[in-house]
Amino acid sequence: MIESLKKEVLDANVALGESGLVSLTWGNVSAIDRDLGLVAIKPSGVDYAELSIESIVVVNLQNEVVEGAFKPSSDTKTHLQLYRSFSEVGAVVHTHSPAATAFAQAGCSIPCLGTTHADHFNGDVPVARALSSDEVVSDYEGATGISIVECFNELGLDPMAVPAVLLKHHAPFTWGETAEKALENSIALEMCAKMALMTYQLRPNAAAIPQHILQQHYFRKHGEEAYYGQG
Amino acid sequence: MIESLKKEVLDANVALGESGLVSLTWGNVSAIDRDLGLVAIKPSGVDYAELSIESIVVVNLQNEVVEGAFKPSSDTKTHLQLYRSFSEVGAVVHTHSPAATAFAQAGCSIPCLGTTHADHFNGDVPVARALSSDEVVSDYEGATGISIVECFNELGLDPMAVPAVLLKHHAPFTWGETAEKALENSIALEMCAKMALMTYQLRPNAAAIPQHILQQHYFRKHGEEAYYGQG
Amino acid sequence: MIESLKKEVLDANVALGESGLVSLTWGNVSAIDRDLGLVAIKPSGVDYAELSIESIVVVNLQNEVVEGAFKPSSDTKTHLQLYRSFSEVGAVVHTHSPAATAFAQAGCSIPCLGTTHADHFNGDVPVARALSSDEVVSDYEGATGISIVECFNELGLDPMAVPAVLLKHHAPFTWGETAEKALENSIALEMCAKMALMTYQLRPNAAAIPQHILQQHYFRKHGEEAYYGQG
Amino acid sequence: MIESLKKEVLDANVALGESGLVSLTWGNVSAIDRDLGLVAIKPSGVDYAELSIESIVVVNLQNEVVEGAFKPSSDTKTHLQLYRSFSEVGAVVHTHSPAATAFAQAGCSIPCLGTTHADHFNGDVPVARALSSDEVVSDYEGATGISIVECFNELGLDPMAVPAVLLKHHAPFTWGETAEKALENSIALEMCAKMALMTYQLRPNAAAIPQHILQQHYFRKHGEEAYYGQG
Repeated sequence: MIESLKKEVLDANVALGESGLVSLTWGNVSAIDRDLGLVAIKPSGVDYAELSIESIVVVNLQNEVVEGAFKPSSDTKTHLQLYRSFSEVGAVVHTHSPAATAFAQAGCSIPCLGTTHADHFNGDVPVARALSSDEVVSDYEGATGISIVECFNELGLDPMAVPAVLLKHHAPFTWGETAEKALENSIALEMCAKMALMTYQLRPNAAAIPQHILQQHYFRKHGEEAYYGQG
Repeated sequence: MIESLKKEVLDANVALGESGLVSLTWGNVSAIDRDLGLVAIKPSGVDYAELSIESIVVVNLQNEVVEGAFKPSSDTKTHLQLYRSFSEVGAVVHTHSPAATAFAQAGCSIPCLGTTHADHFNGDVPVARALSSDEVVSDYEGATGISIVECFNELGLDPMAVPAVLLKHHAPFTWGETAEKALENSIALEMCAKMALMTYQLRPNAAAIPQHILQQHYFRKHGEEAYYGQG
Repeated sequence: MIESLKKEVLDANVALGESGLVSLTWGNVSAIDRDLGLVAIKPSGVDYAELSIESIVVVNLQNEVVEGAFKPSSDTKTHLQLYRSFSEVGAVVHTHSPAATAFAQAGCSIPCLGTTHADHFNGDVPVARALSSDEVVSDYEGATGISIVECFNELGLDPMAVPAVLLKHHAPFTWGETAEKALENSIALEMCAKMALMTYQLRPNAAAIPQHILQQHYFRKHGEEAYYGQG
Repeated sequence: MIESLKKEVLDANVALGESGLVSLTWGNVSAIDRDLGLVAIKPSGVDYAELSIESIVVVNLQNEVVEGAFKPSSDTKTHLQLYRSFSEVGAVVHTHSPAATAFAQAGCSIPCLGTTHADHFNGDVPVARALSSDEVVSDYEGATGISIVECFNELGLDPMAVPAVLLKHHAPFTWGETAEKALENSIALEMCAKMALMTYQLRPNAAAIPQHILQQHYFRKHGEEAYYGQG
C-alpha cells in the first residue's frame, strides 16, 4: 500500500511541475494513508523533473521519517497539521502560484465572483492570519498549520467544501480527497484568482455571485445530487 | 453522416483542449446535423486528451441520448436551446476562458474597440442576465439557453453577425456554422477581451471603433462581398 | 532570385506563426526585391502551418499578381505603399499582437520608457490617424498605407530609425531591411508595449528615458559606430 | 578548468534562452574562475540556440579577450565591475525580463511583499540611479557597474543577501555563487516582480512582509542554520 501512496505522490508532484503553477521548486504535494497513519511527501528542494519513487519521503503523523533517504519538504509540519485536524483530507498541495499568492500578499480573500469559482469552492477562499514572532521562532511550519485550522474554525467553514486557504504574506495551500483532486483545486484556485484580478480591473466593486447560482454550480459537481461527470 | 459529425466534434474538442482557452475540463463543443436533427457533444467531465470517437455522445433536440455510453456535457440543454432558436447555428462552444469570463463576472459587454473585434463580431458582445432562483432550481441549463435567446431578441441582434455571448456571473458561449468556426470565435473572443482589458488600462474611456471602420472590417471577412481568404 | 525572396517570406511567416504574436491568421509578412520591383507576401487567410513555397504570392508594386495561385494578403496594398514611400524598407510585418494593439485601440503612442525600447526604436512609436468614411470606402488598405506615410512625414520621423507604427483602432505594422529584422521589430514592439503597460500601472506618469541614454542604446546597435553583435 | 567554466556559462546561457525570461538576444550570463582571474561570457548578439562551447568568450578582469573568436557581450564591463567589487560573486546574469524591467523603468524598487521574495532576497531589491551624460559617453557599461556598487554601498546592502539590482530606465542584473544560482535569482526576481504588480493592483498600499517572517524564510534557505533542501 505504501508503494501506491508513494506513486500517487510522485505522479502528482511531477504533474505539479508541469502545470505551470510553480517556478523553481516552489511547491509540494503530499498524500496520506489513513489506515497506516503515514504520509508520503516531496523531498525538500529537489527539481520535479528529477523526482523518482525512491526520492519520495514517508513520515508518520508525528513527523518522523519512516522511509526514504531524503529530507522531506520543509513544509511537512504544515501538511501534517492539516491531516490531523481535517479528517477527510487525503492530500495536500502547496504552491506559490502567482495570482493566488498576490491575494495572499495583499491579505485579501478570493471572492466567489462566478461559476468557475463556485464549481470548486463553496464560497470565498479565506486568508489565515500572519504568525507572531514567537510562533515563527518556536515552530514556524507547525504554527502555519494551526493558523489554517483556526481560520476554518473561526469562520465555521467545512474544509471539504472550501478546500483552499491563503496564508497572509505567504501563498496558498489546497487539499482534496486524492492528490489528483488536491492538484485540481490548486489549478482552479490560480485561475479563479487570475479571473478575479481582471474582474476587479473592470469593476472594482464587482458583486459576488448570487447565492442561488453559487449553490447550483457547487452542488452540480459535489455531493449526492451531483450530475457533472461520469461518476 | 453521424460518424462525420462525431469526428468533427471530437476534433474540435481536442483542439479546444490544446487551445490554451481551458483549464481542467472547463469547456465543451457540440455540432448539429440539421437533416438528422441530431447533436454530437463532449461527454461530461472527461479530459480532452482522453476523448475518442466512441466517447462522443449523440442526443436529439429533446435531449434524449441516441448514441454513446457516456453522459453528455452537463451544459447540453443550453446548447440545444441555441440550436432550436438560432436556425443557422451549426456548432456551439462553451469555455471559461479567463479574460472573457472576467467580463462576464463584471457584467460588462465586450466593446468593439478595434478591427480585431470587428473582424469577427459585428458589434459589442452582450451579457445575458443572471437567472432567478426559480429558473435555477427548475431547469438551470435550459433557462441559461433561454436567457441567451431573450438577450439577442431584446437587443435585435443577428446571432450569426455576433456569434458570442457572455452569461452574467458565468462565462462565454460562442457559435458558428461549423465546429472549427465556432472554436475560432472562442479564440477571437478571448483575445478581444484581453486586448480590451489592456486598452481600458491605458484609457478608461476608450472610444468604440468608428462604425464605418467596423463595417469595413466585418464585411471584408463576411457576406457576399468578402475579400479576405481564398474562398 | 525570386525563389530566395519567396523562401525568405515563407520562413518569416512560419516564424511569425510560431512567435506567439498572432492568433488564428492575424498577421502577415512580405519582402521586396528592389531590383526586380517584386514583392512576395503571405496568401490571405491561410494557416501558418500550412504554408509552402508554392503558396507564397508574388506581386509587383502596382498590386498585380505576377506569380502564385493564391490570393495575396488582404493587407497587400498597405505593404506596397510602404515599399513605394520608404525606399530603404526591405520587409514589412503586420500583426495584431495584443499589447501593441491595445495601444493602437487606445490611440496612444508607445513611449520610450527604457533601454529595451531604445535598442530597437529611436523614440516613441507613433499612432497614425483613423481613416475617414470616404477613404475606407474607396480604398481601405491603400489609404491605410498613405496614413502611415503621412504620419511619418508630419512628425519628421526616419522610418528606418523608428521602424514601427500603430494604426488607430487597428494594430501595428513594423518593417526592416530583411524579413528577419522586420519580425524582430514586431517581437520587440510587443514586449515594449507590454513593459510600458506594467510601468504605467506602477507609475502612471512614468518619465521617458533621458535622451542621452536613449541615444547611447540606439547607437550601440545601429549605425556606423554600433558595437553590439558580431557584425 | 577553463573548459568547465565555459561549459557552466554555455549551459546557463542555453537555460536562460529556454527560461521564458528573454526575447531575442536580450540577456547574458557570465561566470568567473577566481583562481585564474578569468571570466567566461556569452558572445554579443548570438542566439541562445546557436551557442556552442567554442562561441563562449573568455576575458580577464581588465576586459582583454583571452580566448574565443567572438566579441564578448556588450555588457561585459558591467559584469567585470561586479566581479571586482563583490568578491563572493561567482556568476552574473542580465535580462530584460518584463515585470522586473517595468519596475526599473518606473524607478521603483521591488518591495518584499511575501515569502516568495524573502526566500531569495533578504529585503527590497534596489534601483541604481540613472547615469549622467558624461558617464554614458565616456564608459557606459563600466559606469553602469560602478552605479550598482555605489547603490549597494550607500544602502549598506550585502550583495550576497540581496543578489539583484534594477538599473533605472534599463533592466535587472542578478548574481550568485554559481551560474545556476544566479539564473535562479533572475527567475525568482521576475516572478516576485509579477506578484508585486498583482498585489499592488489589489491593494495599492500593500504592507511589506513583517521582518520576523522575512528573516525566517530567508534563513530557512540561506546561511548556517538553513534547513531547506538536501544540503
